[in-house]
Amino acid sequence: MSEQKFIIPHDQIIVKDDRQKMNEHKSVIIWFTGLSGSGKSTLANRVQEMLFDDALHTYLLDGDNVRQGLNKDLGFSAEDRQENIRRIGEVAKLFVDAGTIVMTAFISPYITDRQMVRDLVEEDEFVEVFVKCPLEVCEERDTKGLYAKARQGLIKNFTGIDDPYDEPENAELVVDTDKLDLEESALLVISFLKNNGYIQSKI
Amino acid sequence: MSEQKFIIPHDQIIVKDDRQKMNEHKSVIIWFTGLSGSGKSTLANRVQEMLFDDALHTYLLDGDNVRQGLNKDLGFSAEDRQENIRRIGEVAKLFVDAGTIVMTAFISPYITDRQMVRDLVEEDEFVEVFVKCPLEVCEERDTKGLYAKARQGLIKNFTGIDDPYDEPENAELVVDTDKLDLEESALLVISFLKNNGYIQSKI
Repeated sequence: MSEQKFIIPHDQIIVKDDRQKMNEHKSVIIWFTGLSGSGKSTLANRVQEMLFDDALHTYLLDGDNVRQGLNKDLGFSAEDRQENIRRIGEVAKLFVDAGTIVMTAFISPYITDRQMVRDLVEEDEFVEVFVKCPLEVCEERDTKGLYAKARQGLIKNFTGIDDPYDEPENAELVVDTDKLDLEESALLVISFLKNNGYIQSKI
Repeated sequence: MSEQKFIIPHDQIIVKDDRQKMNEHKSVIIWFTGLSGSGKSTLANRVQEMLFDDALHTYLLDGDNVRQGLNKDLGFSAEDRQENIRRIGEVAKLFVDAGTIVMTAFISPYITDRQMVRDLVEEDEFVEVFVKCPLEVCEERDTKGLYAKARQGLIKNFTGIDDPYDEPENAELVVDTDKLDLEESALLVISFLKNNGYIQSKI
């Protein structure tokens, strides 16, 4: 056997702390939860836009990029819904490790599932934002026409209609989207991040 | 119903192209494949360190952060191995969308699985690096003691022993880690990224 030149241990050399220092902000999961039509995605997108304009490193996980990719093998049974949230949580954890402010916009109706994700990361790495809006307002908005279908029985186990939504009991932030407009709502989130030392924003 | 202030469509506003412009480099999957002990993780870590020192945005997916998290429900059956690679590919795609140079260090022995990942992303977003090292050298290194166990029959379906490794036929890069040292190997990868316009590195 010839002498080998190529061998060293392979512990990860660059770690989360290094990335946070380079990015000049902490990394964290901002977990938006609420009924369909409450404004989770709209709010998360606006927050992301504000952070991006400030040159911070962000990413948004939502139905569009997760359900059609990583989780396309999952349906809507109780078991699959739980696995859906578990995988989203694990991916969000990787993004936190990568130094990113990662936002998620999923109904995530069950308190146990949200707690499972909270438990995946450090205590200050999970910020739960309850996007609060009365069912009747969400149903009137019916941005995707899903409530109408659920009322007609065309969709089963629809959150708020024939499946429960567990309101968060210890959310870091509650945003009443039936009282505030989008700018006010987004600035609430930004203020929380500033006041708790996640970012030093110029916004 | 009171007049609602909060409603806009929620297409993603910040997209991959915006992030690449902010980061000042392209985002891409660098997929390291090769036998156990070939040096995939060592090489990926060194490449990541070089890129990080140049203030580029990188992340490394490997057994440590994936197998114990996202994919902890998967075993080593043929079906689970395929699902393991599928999920890694989908997560890597999300990191590319987030503007990151994402590296993966997995044996990924089957050509069909690697092709599946290649097909998930744009043509120039998948760089396959064949970390080439003869089986006998890998087995002599036996950095994790796995070859000894496989030879004793304590591990079944071990790549190179009683499970095949499909050598890449169209890898963007082949790195002979039994001939080159770590620095030479890592610089080969960096040169590829520079010469193909992924980065404008000062390295």
